[in-house]
Amino acid sequence: MGKIISLAHGDGGELSHRLIKDVFVKIFGNNEESLFDASVVDIPGSLAAVTTDSFVIKPIFFPGGSIGKLAVAGTVNDLAVSGAIPLYITCGFVIEEGFPISDLKKIAEDMAEEACKAGVKIVAGDTKVVERGSADGVYINTTGIGAYSRSFGNRLSFKEGDAVIVTGTIGDHGIAVLAARGDLGINVPVKSDCASLNKMLDKVYQNSEGVQIVRDPTRGGVATALVELAEDFSLDILIKEELLPVKDQVHGMCDLIGYDPLYLANEGKAILIVSADEKENILEILTCFPEGKDSVVIGEVTGTEKGRLLLETPLGSKRLLSRLAGTMLPRIC
Amino acid sequence: MGKIISLAHGDGGELSHRLIKDVFVKIFGNNEESLFDASVVDIPGSLAAVTTDSFVIKPIFFPGGSIGKLAVAGTVNDLAVSGAIPLYITCGFVIEEGFPISDLKKIAEDMAEEACKAGVKIVAGDTKVVERGSADGVYINTTGIGAYSRSFGNRLSFKEGDAVIVTGTIGDHGIAVLAARGDLGINVPVKSDCASLNKMLDKVYQNSEGVQIVRDPTRGGVATALVELAEDFSLDILIKEELLPVKDQVHGMCDLIGYDPLYLANEGKAILIVSADEKENILEILTCFPEGKDSVVIGEVTGTEKGRLLLETPLGSKRLLSRLAGTMLPRIC
Repeated sequence: MGKIISLAHGDGGELSHRLIKDVFVKIFGNNEESLFDASVVDIPGSLAAVTTDSFVIKPIFFPGGSIGKLAVAGTVNDLAVSGAIPLYITCGFVIEEGFPISDLKKIAEDMAEEACKAGVKIVAGDTKVVERGSADGVYINTTGIGAYSRSFGNRLSFKEGDAVIVTGTIGDHGIAVLAARGDLGINVPVKSDCASLNKMLDKVYQNSEGVQIVRDPTRGGVATALVELAEDFSLDILIKEELLPVKDQVHGMCDLIGYDPLYLANEGKAILIVSADEKENILEILTCFPEGKDSVVIGEVTGTEKGRLLLETPLGSKRLLSRLAGTMLPRIC
Repeated sequence: MGKIISLAHGDGGELSHRLIKDVFVKIFGNNEESLFDASVVDIPGSLAAVTTDSFVIKPIFFPGGSIGKLAVAGTVNDLAVSGAIPLYITCGFVIEEGFPISDLKKIAEDMAEEACKAGVKIVAGDTKVVERGSADGVYINTTGIGAYSRSFGNRLSFKEGDAVIVTGTIGDHGIAVLAARGDLGINVPVKSDCASLNKMLDKVYQNSEGVQIVRDPTRGGVATALVELAEDFSLDILIKEELLPVKDQVHGMCDLIGYDPLYLANEGKAILIVSADEKENILEILTCFPEGKDSVVIGEVTGTEKGRLLLETPLGSKRLLSRLAGTMLPRIC
């Protein structure tokens, strides 16, 4: 098969066949290449949740994860925050000619491992190869299908006093990836938080009726995710700067390079808006999971009219936050 | 929004939001950006067929289609040839910085039009932007979900005498795309056959019990698709060169540049293996559709043991065919 990807690995002929058989089928644990152009999957109930995401992260390996782990976890999380139970993942690879097959195997192994952890099956795949210079290593699309089990986000259910919970420290992924690019010239001991959250969130859904809505603050960070929620449901949300969980190293890096942790990407965190009377119960569940051990309340819903996000500083002044405007950090996922 | 794609269109902030709203949501005909990270879809029955495909075709616009039309039709066809009824499509875009937004709109319009023709809904999307030089314009992944309605390809059901049908002229897509690249320096009046085949195939499935299996001969062409069928089901297949439907212009081009139409990609053709007593009935149905008007029998199953594909020349000699080996034509889909 050779050591690097050639254009012929993508043309549907003999080499494509062997690449699929020797790398993907082997590592993803299916016994044989599917005999058909589509896979057949069982979906309990008639409603399914569907999500798609492409991953172009640079570098493809970084502390705490890789493009493979991220592609599975990211798609699993999109389903989980929507209230679905993730079941199946498809993956489409666009690979640059010359890409090392050993790296492709590592990526596939990371995908298989994360899929196993999250309890999802990789059911379909596709490989395309483009000429040298027409991609940057490898891009992966993952599409996820889940059983739709729970409906969130009824505008009327939100109430003043609803609590805003974040499931751990913010900005870790953004800083870890930035540091891994080597542009900073310093070593930053921060790992990406990249992780599948479906088991933790499912435990919450099973044990509380108090969840109003959940989002994952990936691109655009916690601030952008909360602005979107505020706008989508006309919520007034107030978060307090002093409550935000930020690692010292992330804080330090942000000070140094002028980034705001509120706008940095996270890949293993969820934001939950929950009813006030359930917040302690939900925090208790979340903090039992390693992925949620640092969960805290960072603010609350103060009204259900204006659709805006305010940040209160330690000195008590309030500042209106908007979506991320312009590029802070490209190719973060 | 500007006239070209910038990195900020992919960072999940304000510009991403506007791109999704002003281009994709508008053109794909959904009333509002989904409030959730996943879309909820209805799947009749509990079995679904799933397929994924990335498209890296060059050039992105070509006679008879575009990367957008191809991405929808290609995924629809993967479902249809598997016996499923295509219902939903997701799309993931990886776009190069500097890509014209007008071109992105044309591509989205082509996708919407083809989805409408095929009767599928585009239910989820994702946009990533990479720096100039890190992609070649735009790559699209489409993942398709369909209701699984019919099981094909029982090894025991194949019989000597089963007919091999191709639903029209072969190699049109390969030659059209090659010519559109301008490398040949001559104008070739051949259009890609790019089309969704699900309605035609569904009509066949509804009206005949004689279909043994169906494949779409895309990358690798008719020969590779038939070799795969032969190997997968241990079939001996004999096709006759004189029966192959090839347009004069395609024939001429192949002679000129040394390509074999049997290995050229098709994007609007299906190969059906059908029982001998149903072949006339099935041909009658196929030829009623514009996409199938040139359908013909090109050969037959001569045994169910060896798993090989033979080509009989007009002079009566027989030649063993193998999968496409090495790259004939990269980035054809």
